[in-house]
Amino acid sequence: MPMDDEDAILDANAAYYQAFNNHDFAAMSRIWADEEEDVSCIHPGWPTLVGRKAVLQSWFHILGNPGQASIECRPLKAIVSAEEGRVLCVEIVGDAALAATNWFRLIDGRWRLLHHQASPLAPPPPAQKEPPKRSLH
Amino acid sequence: MPMDDEDAILDANAAYYQAFNNHDFAAMSRIWADEEEDVSCIHPGWPTLVGRKAVLQSWFHILGNPGQASIECRPLKAIVSAEEGRVLCVEIVGDAALAATNWFRLIDGRWRLLHHQASPLAPPPPAQKEPPKRSLH
Repeated sequence: MPMDDEDAILDANAAYYQAFNNHDFAAMSRIWADEEEDVSCIHPGWPTLVGRKAVLQSWFHILGNPGQASIECRPLKAIVSAEEGRVLCVEIVGDAALAATNWFRLIDGRWRLLHHQASPLAPPPPAQKEPPKRSLH
Repeated sequence: MPMDDEDAILDANAAYYQAFNNHDFAAMSRIWADEEEDVSCIHPGWPTLVGRKAVLQSWFHILGNPGQASIECRPLKAIVSAEEGRVLCVEIVGDAALAATNWFRLIDGRWRLLHHQASPLAPPPPAQKEPPKRSLH
């Protein structure tokens, strides 16, 4: 993988968080792929949103909320193969940490977002406690 | 998108849950793509796992746990474009529901898993309280 592909997808990923933190709905709209059928998004705790229209509607509400906390994104890894690639990162939102995946496709020379999913990370374990009785998997 | 692509990716998705529910590590190993660098997985609450080796190691432990609850998968949508595709689904694990993404790539004619992420869905809001049957005035 040429290094510039990795740089380019990390730039696209940074632009996504910049649009988020700037509450910039127009920039967010340009980041997501144009095709209605290509797009999906799973906000933490939300049901899966399918289709550009539903996803952008969710962003319209989220970015329109003046109380929305900013996200600090810490990229862990960019995995790029031909014209698709994902950035795996940790999102820090206030005291919470989330594991996020941002999946992009190279469309007309620009990395556009196809899919975002952010899941809460378990808080770090307290000093010494019982192991969890059950896990989801 | 030819219909058989959608069927084929849904079959691959079903095979993933079958391997899970059968605690079949060998089948699970065949479902994931072979290339170390292609693979990532985010189990609920876990930090992001990158690389086939780390991901399969997690499955070895999960599938080796005889107390691991089964998953019922309810596919919501398959989105396929050329040689990549995702299945978005709801996973039911005991009383919990998760939003899951399973991302596949067509490799040598077979849909192989590149990435899995499952996030807890917020529990449904409590049932509406009954209006009082009688009022004092």
